Amino acid sequence: MSLFAKTPEPPYYAVIFTSQRTEGENSYEPMAERMIELAAEQPGFLGAESVRGSDGFGITVSYWKSHEAISSWKQHSEHRIAQETGKTLWYQDYQLRISKVERAYSK
Amino acid sequence: MSLFAKTPEPPYYAVIFTSQRTEGENSYEPMAERMIELAAEQPGFLGAESVRGSDGFGITVSYWKSHEAISSWKQHSEHRIAQETGKTLWYQDYQLRISKVERAYSK
Repeated sequence: MSLFAKTPEPPYYAVIFTSQRTEGENSYEPMAERMIELAAEQPGFLGAESVRGSDGFGITVSYWKSHEAISSWKQHSEHRIAQETGKTLWYQDYQLRISKVERAYSK
Repeated sequence: MSLFAKTPEPPYYAVIFTSQRTEGENSYEPMAERMIELAAEQPGFLGAESVRGSDGFGITVSYWKSHEAISSWKQHSEHRIAQETGKTLWYQDYQLRISKVERAYSK
């Protein structure tokens, strides 16, 4: 399976989520997988790319059709629980950036 | 050292580079480190975040003040050599997306 997101021609939106995990698994992996699965079911979801290094620093970029799609996903009840647990348990620190993809190139 | 980029208030630009490495080191690491070092010296560079997983899939996001800054970096002679070697030797595949960061949040 390719780890690249198959996105359409721009414009579309990218949510860049960079995070540093805390020590300990604390059921993080099943949640992370579930969130990608659930995001993929949302209207306006275009794809996601995700990597975490052995030092616990990770980058996940998810792609969306519109601001509305991002906003709906942010408000999703199961996702909100994950967001709260992320703040209190899983992430030592994180940054979230919402950006508009204007141009895209591939190899 | 924090792996997070310390970016200013939006708007600014994010270059999202996702890539799949080929097999073999082929002097990739010294080049990758040199490119981050060199990028950091360019006008309009705001920071970068980078992770590669053990499967060879990686995400690097670099942040820039303007389209002009991104364009100048793209044309930099040493960077152009790295781009060419990336195409022919280091990367099996890659995607490059240029986006405008509109909003940012942190923990």
